[in-house]
This record gives sequence, structure tokens and C-alpha cells, in this order.
Amino acid sequence: MQHITISPLSNELKTALQDKIDQKTKPPGSLGRLEQLALQVGLIQNSLTPVLKNPSIIVFAGDHGIAADGLVNPFPQAVTAQMVYNFLQGGAAINVFCRQHQLKLTVVDAGVNHEFPPHPLLRDRKIARGTQNYLHGPAMSPDQCRLAMQAGADEVKLAYDAGCNTIGFGEMGIGNTSSAALLMSYFTGIPVADCIGIGTGSNAQQLTQKIAVLQQVMAHHVKPKTAEQALATFGGFEIAMITGAILQAAALNMIVVIDGFIVTAALLAAAAMQPAVKDYCVFAHCSEEKGHKAMLQYLGVKPVMQLDMRLGEGTGAAMAIPVIQSAVLFLNEMASFNSAQVSNRTI
Amino acid sequence: MQHITISPLSNELKTALQDKIDQKTKPPGSLGRLEQLALQVGLIQNSLTPVLKNPSIIVFAGDHGIAADGLVNPFPQAVTAQMVYNFLQGGAAINVFCRQHQLKLTVVDAGVNHEFPPHPLLRDRKIARGTQNYLHGPAMSPDQCRLAMQAGADEVKLAYDAGCNTIGFGEMGIGNTSSAALLMSYFTGIPVADCIGIGTGSNAQQLTQKIAVLQQVMAHHVKPKTAEQALATFGGFEIAMITGAILQAAALNMIVVIDGFIVTAALLAAAAMQPAVKDYCVFAHCSEEKGHKAMLQYLGVKPVMQLDMRLGEGTGAAMAIPVIQSAVLFLNEMASFNSAQVSNRTI
Repeated sequence: MQHITISPLSNELKTALQDKIDQKTKPPGSLGRLEQLALQVGLIQNSLTPVLKNPSIIVFAGDHGIAADGLVNPFPQAVTAQMVYNFLQGGAAINVFCRQHQLKLTVVDAGVNHEFPPHPLLRDRKIARGTQNYLHGPAMSPDQCRLAMQAGADEVKLAYDAGCNTIGFGEMGIGNTSSAALLMSYFTGIPVADCIGIGTGSNAQQLTQKIAVLQQVMAHHVKPKTAEQALATFGGFEIAMITGAILQAAALNMIVVIDGFIVTAALLAAAAMQPAVKDYCVFAHCSEEKGHKAMLQYLGVKPVMQLDMRLGEGTGAAMAIPVIQSAVLFLNEMASFNSAQVSNRTI
Repeated sequence: MQHITISPLSNELKTALQDKIDQKTKPPGSLGRLEQLALQVGLIQNSLTPVLKNPSIIVFAGDHGIAADGLVNPFPQAVTAQMVYNFLQGGAAINVFCRQHQLKLTVVDAGVNHEFPPHPLLRDRKIARGTQNYLHGPAMSPDQCRLAMQAGADEVKLAYDAGCNTIGFGEMGIGNTSSAALLMSYFTGIPVADCIGIGTGSNAQQLTQKIAVLQQVMAHHVKPKTAEQALATFGGFEIAMITGAILQAAALNMIVVIDGFIVTAALLAAAAMQPAVKDYCVFAHCSEEKGHKAMLQYLGVKPVMQLDMRLGEGTGAAMAIPVIQSAVLFLNEMASFNSAQVSNRTI
């Protein structure tokens, strides 16, 4: 992937933004998280009147070598492709929430084990028909990993060029909570057993097996030396694309809406490469998938929502975008004590 | 107020609704709170295809005798009327969120210490120009309390007759966190000192004074014998109207969206009169106002959002309505495993 440098946010407008927030007709601080979001979005856009333009969701789909034998996943691998068709037909949860909130939805074939006919919503960025099984070797080659990151970045650039400044990412890939757990363990140092949850719905026996398999994977590989090597080893084409996409979006001063467990795993890789990327991220929700809470704690961030969701697809990001919009709207539209002739505190 | 009977929800459709939810193309349970909301809304409307119709917010405003001398409130009493003008001019937070989510907003003068000229958004239900100071006697007479509850119920009936089936309530009244704390203490048995928070922004010294004053109020009054007597004693015309409004909305099988600390205090009174009312309530958020979390625990309910807000005006309810809408939309619009030809779990 082409080199990208991400600058920490300029604090030039911080005082002016905070003053503007505090002059609104409400007790100071009483809009809670919305005030923090208004400040963050103002700093990202370096503006006292920030605007969310064409908020969009890109869902990256990819298959996983490990999933072919059903060792870690209660749903069969074919579901990845079936769900891509479901996205294209408008029947998935992410379609519903994007329609509700007028978010533009794009689906990217990052590496699904299926050939799709062309479709206006679908972008073909297929690296291969699924990754290799990381029980035996790295999930992808270094070249594949770079290509994937660049593809993610290119998709973001296309959205940006089409006028989007607020973007969330989603994913679909049977087996990808396993990739995310391995990446989480690598980046946070938390033992992999503590990074593994039920994914799409493993029962107790399947969960025990999933833990055993992923411990075997960790033991099999020499510890990767770089974030990019870790991405290549533990894969997910869709995860590597999201890492590239997040980096590109932050470099373009976009608001990056981080979804759940898988997308946050991609962010862990991005943040290891460019720590300032976090400044541009809004953490949409805390997923019910076990490791997500610990990931958010590791990053030292607080999610916008806690709806006990664990679906992926970018559904958490889609639900959080109207909350970010509320923050921007109060900043732009609410009256000030002065303009509304409302008395401020007596003391 | 005319007698109202609220029936517990019929569970007739519970199995069919849960089946419909479980057949959607997602792992079972993976939409978390949205699945619970879809079930609740389906049961309230007794329908497998529920719809939110003309979701609306009614803000009730009233003044408090106690607030005239500034013993419990950092903002002067005049702010209640000033904020009503702000609502009418569209400059308050609740206006912003209602515009964003296309919610109909009505403002009710429940008893503001000011005479307003007529305005299309404003309904005149003024009981008096503020309650009496409950340091010396009951905030209102039994008749005033009954009138207030009936007025709240009548406003809901008007909204219902205009085609609304989903309603949230908000309030404005300098001093009304004190009323709410007194009511909370009465209904939950929690000592009043533990029910008192900073309201619109008391500092440490003001908070100490607020606690002392409200302990004095509790000591001054013989313990009210009924919920209605408690409402009359500790007041708030706006709070009594919301109690009546909540009861009427539940009796009409509407979805009742409960905002923060003050509105939940009104619900405590409503639930003491008609315990089944809770079945119809969605708890929008957990306010930062200290007592609200304990109120929600007392009721045994979980809020939809936790945005650290403590503004009132119905802002929490307005923010939660799109989440309820997401629940209804996934139930109606998502494909099933069957219709989308997606494989279900292998085991």
C-alpha cells in the first residue's frame, strides 16, 4: 500500500468549539457524549460548523481457509457468498439500516470463494477465492496483504471523491471472528483464549474446539514482526482491506465510524502502523462478541452505543451515524443563551 | 382524571414474533436490544408487522414554588418561560432532534409563571402560575392534581386521534429535579439524599443546600397515602400531566418512550396506580442525573442508550425513537433464511 501519513488532530479550534458548545441553551455538559462528538467532528473537519456529507458504509466480504472444514464456525462457508447476494438484494440488516438513515451502501468482494456476476452495488476487489488456512501457513502472502490494503484505501478514495466525508466499514466472512481474535491477541498481548467469543453462535462444545484450534494457530506461527505481517499471517482479506480503508479515510480527514469486533481488529492493525488514526475514529458500539469490550478498553475509548448487538456487516456503525449527526446538528442549529435571550446560571 | 384501566400485554403473538425474528438472516439474538424492542412493539400492537405512526414528542412546562427563592436551582425561575419561547422558536435541543428524526413536537404550558401569547406549537393547559412551595404545604391541591393528570391524558388523546401511536414526553421546569427526587424517594423508599443530583448544574455547596432543603420537605409532610397524594404534595404540574399522559398512552396501546429522571419520576407514580403501564414503556436512556440509574434499577428495566445526557426536554426519548424504528424495520424488511436462500446453522 502507498505510504500514508496521518497527522494528529490540530487543536487550533478546540477552545472556540468548546465555547460554542457551552453557549448553547442547555446546562454545560448536559448533552454528554454528543458534546464530545461535536468537539471531535469539529476538530477533524477543523471547522466551527462541521457537516456530515454523504455518510456511507462499505461492507467488505471475504472467505477464510480455516472455515472450509467447519472447525471454528457453526455456519457453513457458503453463507459468505449467500449473504453477499442478500446484501445486493437489499434483504440484510445493514440494508435496512442504510435505507433508514439514507446511508450509501457499497459491497466489496475482497475474496469470497464464489464468482459473482456484475452488480451495481458490488465492487470486485477479489484477491483470491478465500485465504489460506492459517493452521498450516500464513493466511496470505505479503503481496496479497499489500494489495488488499491498497484496495481498501482505493475504495475509500472513490467514496471521498464522490463527496463523502463520513464513512463506516462492515464485514462479512464466515470464520472472521477467529481472524479477529488472533489479531487481537497479537496486538493487545491478551491470551487468545480470552479473545474468543461465540461469533455467529458457537455452542459450548464448538467454543472449546474454537479455542483449541486458535491456540494451535498461535503456537504454529513465529510471532510476526510487524503489523502488516500479523495481518498477512492471521488474515482476512476483508480485514486487511478495512485496515487500508481506515488509514486512507483518516488521512483524508474523514470521520471514521468503527463498527464491532472485526472492524476494531482491523483498526488495531491500523493504529499499530499510525497511532494518530484513532483521533479520526468514532467507536460506534460495544459488541456482545466477547473480545470487543477488552479491545475498546485496550484502546482507551468509549463506544457511542451498547445495544448488545453482535452481527457485524457495519450494522453498529450504521446505527451510530444518526447519533453523530445529532451532535453536528445541535452544534449548528441550537440557539445560544444570547441569541435566544435565555438567562445563564445566576452563579 | 377519568378512570383508566391498563391491561398487561397479551402474549398471543409472542411465539410467532420470536419465530419471525429468528428466521431473519442473522445469527439468532445477534441484533441484541433491537430484537427485544421488535418483540415488545409487536406485542403492544398485537401485530407481526408493527408500524410506528407519526412518532411525537410532547414537552410539558411548569414552574415550581420552591424555585422562586433559588434554594435548589442554579438557573433563575424565569428560564422556564424563556426556554418555552426557545422551543417555540425552534432553537432548543429538542427542536433539533425532532427536526432530525421528523418527530412532531408540541409544547404544553402546564403551569409556567408567565402568560404566553398564542402560538401554533403551544397548548395552554395552565393550572396556575407555578406550584406552591412544598416547604410550607402541598405543591398543589387534589383538584389541581386531578386536572393536571386529565390535561396530560387529553393531550395524548389528541395526538392519538391525529394518528400517532408512538409518543415520548419531555419537560421543562426550573426546580423540577427536586420534585422528581422527592417523588423518587416516596415511591422507591430510597432516602431523599440519595435521590438528589446536580440537576441543571449545582456546584458542591448548592448540592449540600439542595439536600438539606429537600430533607426538610420530607420531614415537613405526613407521608402521602396514595400515589396521587404524593404527586399533589411534591408537585410539578408538568410531572402530574406526564403521569396522566403516560397512563392514557398505555391505555391506547401506544408505545410510550420514557425520557430521563423527571419523566421516570412521573412513571413511578403511573406505575403505582397501574402496574401494567410498564409493559408499554421503552426506556430511552440512562440520564447522568444521579437518581435515574437507581430508578431504572428499581423498575427492573434496561435503557436503550447511555449517552451521559442530562438535559430533559424529551431529548433522550427523541434520540431513542430511531432505534425503536430500526427494530420495527428489521422485523418488517429483512429477508428470512428461506426467502434469501441463505443456509442456516449446520448444527
